[in-house]
This record gives sequence, structure tokens and C-alpha cells, in this order.
Amino acid sequence: MKIAILGTGMVGETLGGKLVALGHEVRMGSRTANNEKAVAWTQKAGARASQGTFADAAAFAELVFNCTAGTASLEALKLTGARNLNGKVLVDVANPLDFSKGFPPTLSVSNTDSLGEQLQRAFPEVKVVKALNTVTCTVMVNPGMLSAPTDTFVAGNDAGAKKQVTQLLTEGFGWKRVTDLGDIAASRGLEMLLPLWLRLYQSQGTAEFNFQLVRA
Amino acid sequence: MKIAILGTGMVGETLGGKLVALGHEVRMGSRTANNEKAVAWTQKAGARASQGTFADAAAFAELVFNCTAGTASLEALKLTGARNLNGKVLVDVANPLDFSKGFPPTLSVSNTDSLGEQLQRAFPEVKVVKALNTVTCTVMVNPGMLSAPTDTFVAGNDAGAKKQVTQLLTEGFGWKRVTDLGDIAASRGLEMLLPLWLRLYQSQGTAEFNFQLVRA
Repeated sequence: MKIAILGTGMVGETLGGKLVALGHEVRMGSRTANNEKAVAWTQKAGARASQGTFADAAAFAELVFNCTAGTASLEALKLTGARNLNGKVLVDVANPLDFSKGFPPTLSVSNTDSLGEQLQRAFPEVKVVKALNTVTCTVMVNPGMLSAPTDTFVAGNDAGAKKQVTQLLTEGFGWKRVTDLGDIAASRGLEMLLPLWLRLYQSQGTAEFNFQLVRA
Repeated sequence: MKIAILGTGMVGETLGGKLVALGHEVRMGSRTANNEKAVAWTQKAGARASQGTFADAAAFAELVFNCTAGTASLEALKLTGARNLNGKVLVDVANPLDFSKGFPPTLSVSNTDSLGEQLQRAFPEVKVVKALNTVTCTVMVNPGMLSAPTDTFVAGNDAGAKKQVTQLLTEGFGWKRVTDLGDIAASRGLEMLLPLWLRLYQSQGTAEFNFQLVRA
């Protein structure tokens, strides 16, 4: 499949690298073409990797990952352009973390709204699926690195889009437990896990952890 | 030990019943003495159970559980009175859930503040420990009912108070994994888990679940 990665940070690099390894054609998008980090990534990721502007990447792709910083995602998607996104699945893995007052960050939107919902409202013809934002990127693409199966989630308004993303998570990345939490408003709960996640990151001394849902 | 349960709801009944069963003397406090539910609880819980006003219960106790509705907790503690609480450990198991706009509720405080912090600020001489708010009450007192060990957390500014609560959770209630998340500001993360918890409650069809932290 042709996939766009919006954002050149560690999350985009890791997801993009895995998707190339799975056989997909992946274009990394940035504010400007020939971004230094994007070029370095294409050289590392190989022949199926390319780079360009946000708009280039989305126009090329059938499915788009939002890997930009959460507080900059709305602006990045505006630069990407609705015409390059409409009708496509946008997997939003970002968290709206506001580091302006130091660590730990707060959320720039929460409780009665979420980044996932903001993106969906701004781009009503895009099929936004919130996914993977509750784990660090190495776990996103390799959940088997953890010592027991753990849970991940999808939320969105389009059932077909969630099914497609779930299939990529299970068959592509190796997730064994993907729970559909309902509509895109469930992004609130997924993003609001971050403050607890950040405290655990501090107490555990590693970002490589996740939760297994345990029932009676 | 002499323990106060503030609140006559299901959480208070369940915690109070377990604490009596463990051999503690437990007084349930309410807005008024001889509250119908508190009286019914004492009759069920047996000789070590008693009831009275919030102030009666706290004055009687060495350790106090806040089991009032989160949005009413500050007012309930004001009725209880600082002189009956000062110097004592207050275990805050409440969540500031605002149901005024229906289900699912939002949080009445979140992100840059929390109920745990509000209580600590209002009662600076009380040792507030946030604990157990991330599970339903039947799991609080019987974590072994779940099919695998799961994790619970304490947060607060007083190390001795967290140690005492941790001991009650492990030796009394049977928790095997209690993680200290740091100061009372970690209540934000613990309370902000609720929106995800509520979505899972809907998707699982049961409140009797919890998370196991899994590492590499």
C-alpha cells in the first residue's frame, strides 16, 4: 500500500521504517521538501522510502499517519491540504502535549475535547482513526518486545477505517489485542492516559511498557 | 485500627465492610447522623461498625477514607472539619466525575489540577493519599478476583502515609503490585484515567477489570 508519514520525528521514522520493512511504499512528509531528517530516513529505509512536503506525501498515499507533534498537528494538516486527505484514512498517533511549562507536560486539549476530535472536525471528509498514541514508538511497531501480550485501541467514526487500521496493527505490527472503543470522542480517554503514562515513565525508568487488560 | 468511611454509597459500603472483616473498627460518616444507608450498613457489617456525622466519624478515626462523590468531596470535608482531620491520613478514592451533562461524565477538574490536589490544598495538615480510584469497589477490596495480578497506585506528599496505605492495600486487601507515583500531583494522571476506564466499561460490559503493567 502507499502510505504517508507526516512528521520527521522518532515516531515517524520508526513507523515509516516498519511500514517499508512490511513491503509498503512510504513517503515521509515535512513542512518543506528535502528536510534533512526525512532525506536521512529515506537513505536508511531503502528503495520503497521517499520524501516530500506534507502535501506531496498525502497526495501520494492511500493511508496517512499523523506523526507530527500534537500541538502542531492541526497546522500541519492545514499545510497538507484537505484535497490531499479527503476520503482517506488518517491514523492519528499524536498526543497534544504542551511542554511550554516544562516537564511533565500538560495537555493542550482534554476532558471535553481531544486532538482526535479536533482533526476530525477540521477535516470532516477524512476518516480519522485514533490509534497507538498510548505507547512509545518502539512498542507501536513491535508489541512482542514486551514480556506479555498487551492491549491497544482504535477510536473513530468510520467502521471500515477502523477495520483497516486494526488489520494493519494485527497482521502488520503483531498486536494481538485491539479493542474498538467507539467513536472519535474516545480519543479523550486515549489522550488523557498520557499524564499517568508520564508518571509511570518516570517511576519505571523506561518508556517501553504497556498495559494488559485483565478481567475476572 | 479505627477507620472512618466518609460517604454511604457503594464504595463506602464495600470498603467499610472489608475493613470490618479485617478486624478494624469502622465508623461511616454522613451529612447527618442516622442516615438510613449508614444505619443499614452497620446492621449488616456487625459489632465493629458504627455510624455518625462526617465529623463524628473522622474524630473517632486514625485513618479516613474519602468515599464521597468527587464533585461533593470538598464540601463534605469542610463539613467534616479540619480539626477532626488534621494530622491524619486521608485516603482519597474519589473521582471528580461530572454527570450533569449525562453519560459519559466529564471531569470537573483535570489536566492542570486534580481532586487529590484540591483536597490537599484545602487541608494542608492532612496527609492525603490518592489510591484505588482506578478500579471499581469490588476490585478495590478483592484484587484477587481478577484472572491475573494487576497494578494499583498511590500518590501523595507524605512518604509515611503512602507506606501505611500501601501496607493496608497489600496485607489487608491483597494487592500484589502497588506503585508509588510520587507527589499528590500524580492524582491528575490517576483521575484522568477515568474517561478511558468508562469507554472500556462500555466495551467490556463489566466494571470488574484492571490493568497489568507489562514491561520488556
